[in-house]
Amino acid sequence: MTQTYPVVIGIDFDAEASWIGKNPANASRPVLLSNGTFAVREGLVPLLDLLDHHRVHATFFVPGMTADRHPDAVRSIAARGHEVASHTYGHRAVAGLSREEERDQLVRGIEAVENVTGSRPVSWRSASWEWSDHTLDLLLDNGVTVSANFHDAIRPYRHMRDGVGLPLVELPVQWHLADAPFFLYGGDLQRRIRPAAEAEAVWMDEFEAGYDWPGTYFHLTLHVQLMGHPGRLRMLDRVLGRIRGHARARFLTCEQLATSIP
Amino acid sequence: MTQTYPVVIGIDFDAEASWIGKNPANASRPVLLSNGTFAVREGLVPLLDLLDHHRVHATFFVPGMTADRHPDAVRSIAARGHEVASHTYGHRAVAGLSREEERDQLVRGIEAVENVTGSRPVSWRSASWEWSDHTLDLLLDNGVTVSANFHDAIRPYRHMRDGVGLPLVELPVQWHLADAPFFLYGGDLQRRIRPAAEAEAVWMDEFEAGYDWPGTYFHLTLHVQLMGHPGRLRMLDRVLGRIRGHARARFLTCEQLATSIP
Amino acid sequence: MTQTYPVVIGIDFDAEASWIGKNPANASRPVLLSNGTFAVREGLVPLLDLLDHHRVHATFFVPGMTADRHPDAVRSIAARGHEVASHTYGHRAVAGLSREEERDQLVRGIEAVENVTGSRPVSWRSASWEWSDHTLDLLLDNGVTVSANFHDAIRPYRHMRDGVGLPLVELPVQWHLADAPFFLYGGDLQRRIRPAAEAEAVWMDEFEAGYDWPGTYFHLTLHVQLMGHPGRLRMLDRVLGRIRGHARARFLTCEQLATSIP
Amino acid sequence: MTQTYPVVIGIDFDAEASWIGKNPANASRPVLLSNGTFAVREGLVPLLDLLDHHRVHATFFVPGMTADRHPDAVRSIAARGHEVASHTYGHRAVAGLSREEERDQLVRGIEAVENVTGSRPVSWRSASWEWSDHTLDLLLDNGVTVSANFHDAIRPYRHMRDGVGLPLVELPVQWHLADAPFFLYGGDLQRRIRPAAEAEAVWMDEFEAGYDWPGTYFHLTLHVQLMGHPGRLRMLDRVLGRIRGHARARFLTCEQLATSIP
Repeated sequence: MTQTYPVVIGIDFDAEASWIGKNPANASRPVLLSNGTFAVREGLVPLLDLLDHHRVHATFFVPGMTADRHPDAVRSIAARGHEVASHTYGHRAVAGLSREEERDQLVRGIEAVENVTGSRPVSWRSASWEWSDHTLDLLLDNGVTVSANFHDAIRPYRHMRDGVGLPLVELPVQWHLADAPFFLYGGDLQRRIRPAAEAEAVWMDEFEAGYDWPGTYFHLTLHVQLMGHPGRLRMLDRVLGRIRGHARARFLTCEQLATSIP
Repeated sequence: MTQTYPVVIGIDFDAEASWIGKNPANASRPVLLSNGTFAVREGLVPLLDLLDHHRVHATFFVPGMTADRHPDAVRSIAARGHEVASHTYGHRAVAGLSREEERDQLVRGIEAVENVTGSRPVSWRSASWEWSDHTLDLLLDNGVTVSANFHDAIRPYRHMRDGVGLPLVELPVQWHLADAPFFLYGGDLQRRIRPAAEAEAVWMDEFEAGYDWPGTYFHLTLHVQLMGHPGRLRMLDRVLGRIRGHARARFLTCEQLATSIP
Repeated sequence: MTQTYPVVIGIDFDAEASWIGKNPANASRPVLLSNGTFAVREGLVPLLDLLDHHRVHATFFVPGMTADRHPDAVRSIAARGHEVASHTYGHRAVAGLSREEERDQLVRGIEAVENVTGSRPVSWRSASWEWSDHTLDLLLDNGVTVSANFHDAIRPYRHMRDGVGLPLVELPVQWHLADAPFFLYGGDLQRRIRPAAEAEAVWMDEFEAGYDWPGTYFHLTLHVQLMGHPGRLRMLDRVLGRIRGHARARFLTCEQLATSIP
Repeated sequence: MTQTYPVVIGIDFDAEASWIGKNPANASRPVLLSNGTFAVREGLVPLLDLLDHHRVHATFFVPGMTADRHPDAVRSIAARGHEVASHTYGHRAVAGLSREEERDQLVRGIEAVENVTGSRPVSWRSASWEWSDHTLDLLLDNGVTVSANFHDAIRPYRHMRDGVGLPLVELPVQWHLADAPFFLYGGDLQRRIRPAAEAEAVWMDEFEAGYDWPGTYFHLTLHVQLMGHPGRLRMLDRVLGRIRGHARARFLTCEQLATSIP
């Protein structure tokens, strides 16, 4: 039997939430926030069209704040058949939160998405990829069955406690398989902006090499506000096309992939 | 009917103002300031010649301080037929300003340019692309009809209040369609300097992909002090030539483009 | 007689230790730590296989904390015939340590490795490449005969005191011949991630130019957690292959090379 | 008459001084300092050989501290026919210095070089390219006739006061025509290291474009500790060869070029 190579496209639809979550004072910086609004106003529709063109169902991670502010946009994602997952309420880093605040962020984030789509999200990503000591219990308590946060593997695995498998699958991610380290700019992050072709080179190097490693998968992390620009979407078009050119590659949502993990 | 693709070249002629505005203590750092003086002493004339060669009318955003310090240079820009727009008085970030200070920066910036060119500027860009809660009212009060600040779109739009269009058009910008994220250096910004060809690649990727998106436009943001070097001007020569090779591309000033926005 | 060109591959097997050593608070950041766990869970085996394929014996620098946490992984390195060297106990920078703390880090680091492998390490690298005023004496007191820390040469040399050679050989390193300046990401280091081909270009430029300099050698510094990704391992495969294509190149462990230094 | 295109190669021979000048505490960081020692131990001789090979006389800027610590190395530079210029005493930034301290740094820096070479230097570069309000008077008082500090032009000019030419010529520099923005690493500057070919591309873009601008010149700023590596020297070999392939290019020392400025 030929082993398939699962491909997960996880897309953060942060809009303004990631800027406000980083620093509440950003709420009164309309131009900085407009980086996030771009996702709603320009980036989302052509990105959805591109995914349709390649017949890819992706997983969109949506902060509750974004669901509240832009419900129609979130509904349009669900209507195209993509998984709508949770991405906290206000995109706040876990480091500064009490257990109660973290619980509140998690619960409100899930509920806000459910209110808009009518479906309770089962996949979840933290803000900035971090857990606290409380996160595991909070996820289990709230019915989250898929986490897309850890960096320790290039294959899915089940979270364990005392040697026993828990009802939570991890779909690990990597910073170099994300768009932010190449394109994120603004606020205090005054780094250089990289050409789209450079991210493409890094991603495809890993995709093609990983394709031949038994048991691994490919998990790309994107942001609508970073990728939804014409030139970068052309790059993503090339990436999706090159992935589809590999016979064993199978696009799956987070939820779909997690159900197959023992 | 064939739709045209508007191309706006917005050029900041900051000279010393951007360094002093960033930190008043820089006023006693003559070598750091000399990065700005370069724009007046070397960069401006060959850049104007290059624009003439390509028959491009650009929009130059000029801080009032620069108009006061280098009036002949500013007049030479107007004399070549370019739009001379306002870029605050002292290139100070809006975050630290009171409403009264912000108003003072706006009014004095506009007046200083008008004093030199004889024409009141109608287009305006803040320092470092930010607005405060007061900015919209201040712009409307002072006859500004074009803003080049927001990042939320790749097409022009009219600012609204309570669902009603205001006499202020936004010509949105993007950091990756500017020169600073590739070339700005010095002061506390100790980042790597990028080759001119890299900026060219990013810009042309977006230009060519955007060319086929109905209703969008291309808005490039340059600085005389960064672009006015021989090698980078050669790159700009290639960029302008490549743009002109696209039949539907039309160079417009900010003011010209804004008048066509409903 | 034809002079050989020694090639040393020094590989840090830090796992979680480098993140905790950087900041003890990172011990409660499980996702950040998982960057290090990747080395144990994914990166090590394919890297060892690749070294076998090229018949290269490398020197693995292991923090004592990693030997304590992952003894089987460390034993598997020794079992493949590689040198297992010491890399402090907890990967703590020397700058904030008292003499007694530094001694403790050194002694415990050596002992933890010896406990696991059964062999006392003789080669040693500090955390983040720094010495204190006490380091030399501490190394001599504890039987360390090879240091891989200084940047002052591209050839091995013997440490001297008062004009007399000491029983300690330096195998100098260079930041541009390491992987971290291209790939390290996370924590507070929010730099851009570079393509694998870029590190390859820098390394091979230096390798090929150094190949013709009499008396020099080539010393590459890698980290399992950074290099153990499919795409980057393909690059390392190319690098090792290109090195092997040079007739006078000889792969040596740190210990092997040091024994030949007068 | 055919106009020549002057080419100045200014080389900082900082050794340990630039690290200690940046932070006195670095004096007890032997590994960090060893980045500077590399210049003396490895980099200088092959760089001098390369300059000989291309028959180039360069200007070496030497901190007084380096002249005191490495007098033979400094004498070897002079013996090859290069200009030995002054680069402050202890490579301290002018910002934190009183007038008296600045004077002391200048005078001691000049005297230390003169003590070693027997010739009083006439060209001078500050640490990190900055002047204070006192610098001009101090330079005039101490017989400095050439400054290599300002960024405001790509052609030499004479400093003026009240419309009168002073006995001080400026040979302006540019950050993108230096090696540090591409290669400097360590201490607190945790930036990415760039490939040698990238610096070469930026430099040659500017060289070739500037070659056709009447009245301009090309001024490259290098550091022995950054350029004295095999791979980077190969790049410099290509750069010098390409410059020599331009018929009107003329290598001159700072002092030589300054004498021709009216």
